[in-house]
Amino acid sequence: MSALQRIRVVLNGPSHPGNIGASARAMQAMGLSQLVLVAPRCFPHPEASARAAGAAPLLDSATVVDSLDSALRGATLAIGFTARPREFAGAVRAVRDAAAEAIEYASRGDVALVFGGELSGLSNADLARCQVVATIPAAARHASLNLAAAVQVAAYELFVAAEGNAVWIAPAFESAGLEAIEALYAHAERTLAAMRFLNPDQPRRLLPRLRRLFARTRLEKAEVDILRGVLARIDQLIERSRNHAR
Amino acid sequence: MSALQRIRVVLNGPSHPGNIGASARAMQAMGLSQLVLVAPRCFPHPEASARAAGAAPLLDSATVVDSLDSALRGATLAIGFTARPREFAGAVRAVRDAAAEAIEYASRGDVALVFGGELSGLSNADLARCQVVATIPAAARHASLNLAAAVQVAAYELFVAAEGNAVWIAPAFESAGLEAIEALYAHAERTLAAMRFLNPDQPRRLLPRLRRLFARTRLEKAEVDILRGVLARIDQLIERSRNHAR
Repeated sequence: MSALQRIRVVLNGPSHPGNIGASARAMQAMGLSQLVLVAPRCFPHPEASARAAGAAPLLDSATVVDSLDSALRGATLAIGFTARPREFAGAVRAVRDAAAEAIEYASRGDVALVFGGELSGLSNADLARCQVVATIPAAARHASLNLAAAVQVAAYELFVAAEGNAVWIAPAFESAGLEAIEALYAHAERTLAAMRFLNPDQPRRLLPRLRRLFARTRLEKAEVDILRGVLARIDQLIERSRNHAR
Repeated sequence: MSALQRIRVVLNGPSHPGNIGASARAMQAMGLSQLVLVAPRCFPHPEASARAAGAAPLLDSATVVDSLDSALRGATLAIGFTARPREFAGAVRAVRDAAAEAIEYASRGDVALVFGGELSGLSNADLARCQVVATIPAAARHASLNLAAAVQVAAYELFVAAEGNAVWIAPAFESAGLEAIEALYAHAERTLAAMRFLNPDQPRRLLPRLRRLFARTRLEKAEVDILRGVLARIDQLIERSRNHAR
């Protein structure tokens, strides 16, 4: 069982069915599957299903319970989310650090992420049931994230903590060899001189600047071929105009 | 001007006004303020205002334009978001790395984060206008984040890249000094022996286990006082029962 499968998301008293559906969608995108609803005001509800979109099966398999105790049953770590400082909350961790701890714990037991309702969040009594209190860094202390947005950020951090930050590999293009790149610079220098854009006696900083520009691009083999082709075409034009001038 | 203030969020052809409002709220929570809408299907709209909640002023000051070109005017870096691999997208970066680059750029110029509409995302032509293509790591290639959820994750990563991952400081409680902690252990050992819970001739692993438990807690001064008080009360009870037994 993967770590993400041992993590449940608990929404404690959610008011708006749209947020329940959007939370389900956020979870599914990040590989989470266990949604627990404590005394939701309206559920099931068409708005929840609409916002869940492709995560309707996850929403349909959500567990509905009537107390936070029931929601935490069987878990070994509870992480409560708050947007506000609390006098006795003790140390509050950023969601990124809390996600790392959740994934570590999930290798040996079930973990619950607990979110309060839209109106007032988790009560102090609810937070006291959680060993870890977490928050999402935000611009102002009282800047409130929407409930489903908070679930999305937490689920994203769990996914990155579990699976890493790698994204799919871009289609592989062959990188240019350094000899081919040096040959390109040499060709460019000859052509620029033939064009009389570069004065070999007063080269100023043109060549170093071109090197700096192309160094940043990590040239691919096909790109070097294109640039050599452009240079060769310029060489032809110069040659032709010389013949013409004779 | 802070880096976050030089970053605009461009929604290219959003269909659902709710997502426009929710994006505004996500931005405000993370310290972003410039929202640009390219040919929104319905805007302004009551659903946008409702989902914006406290970010209504940000929503009201959104710029509406009719082309992506107009939306990118004045920017020096455009980062396009996609959930799908594209043959010619080149390297795709994870949102965390793209956010770090955006913040670095924003110290010298305006940066645009570009998100496509709900139905089909950014076209290849749109992505070609962006120097950086970014994606949000997710469980499955085709797992789609809701548009506003994607804006929330990106805005969160920008905020963390700009302002760091620190959260507010918990109310400072004074940590216990190591001498006080050692005195606590010594007291506990005496009391446990007096209680006959600990046999000094066969202590087994009781004392090391208690040390290990409390070592994890980072004892505070007031907590040591409470624990010493409990031990002293036990000492009294033992004393009283001895007197009683006489």
